[in-house]
Amino acid sequence: MENKFAFAQDLIKKAGQLVIEQMKDVFDVTVKTTQDDVVTSIDIAIQNFLIQSIAEHYPEDHFLAEEENCQHGISVGNVWVIDPIDGTLNFVTQKSDFAIMISYFEKGSGQFGLIYDVMEDKLYSGGGVFSVTCNDEKLPVFDGRPLSHSLVACNTGMLLKNSYGVQELLKHSLGVRNYGCAALSIARVLNNQLWAYISNVYPWDYAAANVLGQALGYELMTLDGSDIDYTNRQMVIFLPSQYKNTIQELHFRS
Amino acid sequence: MENKFAFAQDLIKKAGQLVIEQMKDVFDVTVKTTQDDVVTSIDIAIQNFLIQSIAEHYPEDHFLAEEENCQHGISVGNVWVIDPIDGTLNFVTQKSDFAIMISYFEKGSGQFGLIYDVMEDKLYSGGGVFSVTCNDEKLPVFDGRPLSHSLVACNTGMLLKNSYGVQELLKHSLGVRNYGCAALSIARVLNNQLWAYISNVYPWDYAAANVLGQALGYELMTLDGSDIDYTNRQMVIFLPSQYKNTIQELHFRS
Repeated sequence: MENKFAFAQDLIKKAGQLVIEQMKDVFDVTVKTTQDDVVTSIDIAIQNFLIQSIAEHYPEDHFLAEEENCQHGISVGNVWVIDPIDGTLNFVTQKSDFAIMISYFEKGSGQFGLIYDVMEDKLYSGGGVFSVTCNDEKLPVFDGRPLSHSLVACNTGMLLKNSYGVQELLKHSLGVRNYGCAALSIARVLNNQLWAYISNVYPWDYAAANVLGQALGYELMTLDGSDIDYTNRQMVIFLPSQYKNTIQELHFRS
Repeated sequence: MENKFAFAQDLIKKAGQLVIEQMKDVFDVTVKTTQDDVVTSIDIAIQNFLIQSIAEHYPEDHFLAEEENCQHGISVGNVWVIDPIDGTLNFVTQKSDFAIMISYFEKGSGQFGLIYDVMEDKLYSGGGVFSVTCNDEKLPVFDGRPLSHSLVACNTGMLLKNSYGVQELLKHSLGVRNYGCAALSIARVLNNQLWAYISNVYPWDYAAANVLGQALGYELMTLDGSDIDYTNRQMVIFLPSQYKNTIQELHFRS
């Protein structure tokens, strides 16, 4: 597993370099479902680069990835979950605040996860048997502070619709942030900068969170009480495990 | 004026160093009005440092500053507008995403403005007769792109209350961001990363925006159509000047 983890760490940095090179030129932006759901030619190129590189080294492995309907079931064999560019709208309009995410599962069990903040050159990696680090610095476990002393990142659509009484929940916090990037919001939770992250996300958006968070005392919980299924888009909160029950109470009370 | 501008650029960096030194130790956090309106002992220390340093060099000058009721009228004499730490909640909980802001006015006319992103060591400065730069790089003038291809940062309270029909306005954009820091949201507009910034802000939050924005094609507009008064908290949008009329139409239609 050490080799595979080191391979992934090296690979994600190479993919980041490729993004930086390609974003210097004009690139295509294609609308997927709505005006704010876009994919660029760079997303596709990076996903292809990652999948081809992994397949070359580990030809028996499978893929669950954002673009081009590449969706192998999480629980069957060795599966790499890939989001080539998370925060594509930030990537297109801001040229910053996006990340590459990779996580690796064997028979449904997360072995390691990686979030690479390309423009800041910060690699969050670890999980499973590996320490969770940002670059070479070990990340601390959750420090126990309450929601009332903390900030939370939340999806705007859910905030406006008050999905699952999220507005009530957020009133117990110091305030709401919205960075427009699941990966970097998750990284801020892992960093003790945010208390939680609430969004409506796909498996490639949350897989790394679940693997990276476990060792530091965080976990992913769906807002409707169902299991995390690694197939559909789900409304989730990524939060400190020790507050899971408190939040369930708060949230079902509202 | 060159000397005064160079003095301010040097001073704001020194203040940033002081913040970094002081944040290593435990510091006091005091609630001002509500739980999410706080001031730290570092805010006070930095404001005192800035005011003392300026008063030593320019004893005839006046101050309009965030902490401790230091509010000289903007139109009388030479006035330094100071926000020692903008984004105090980010400063306290995230140790990042905050900035120091200084702007300088003579008889109500902005001469230069500065926004210093302390943790990223990025200084946005200029306005009046000076080019607007980020560190040593000249910032481009607004590139003309429409709201429909852009992101907007917006205050959460105003978004939830739909103040001045802001939800309608934002439906014309690609999406909403919330960084919890006026200075850094303004910097992202100046950088062409965001199209506009909407918030309910005090003079020390917006003074620098108005001075820095002018040369690059941005301006500050109140949402109720009144003048920017440099005395009260006002709901404002900082946006490309060329779209001011379009936005007024959109916004009063809703």
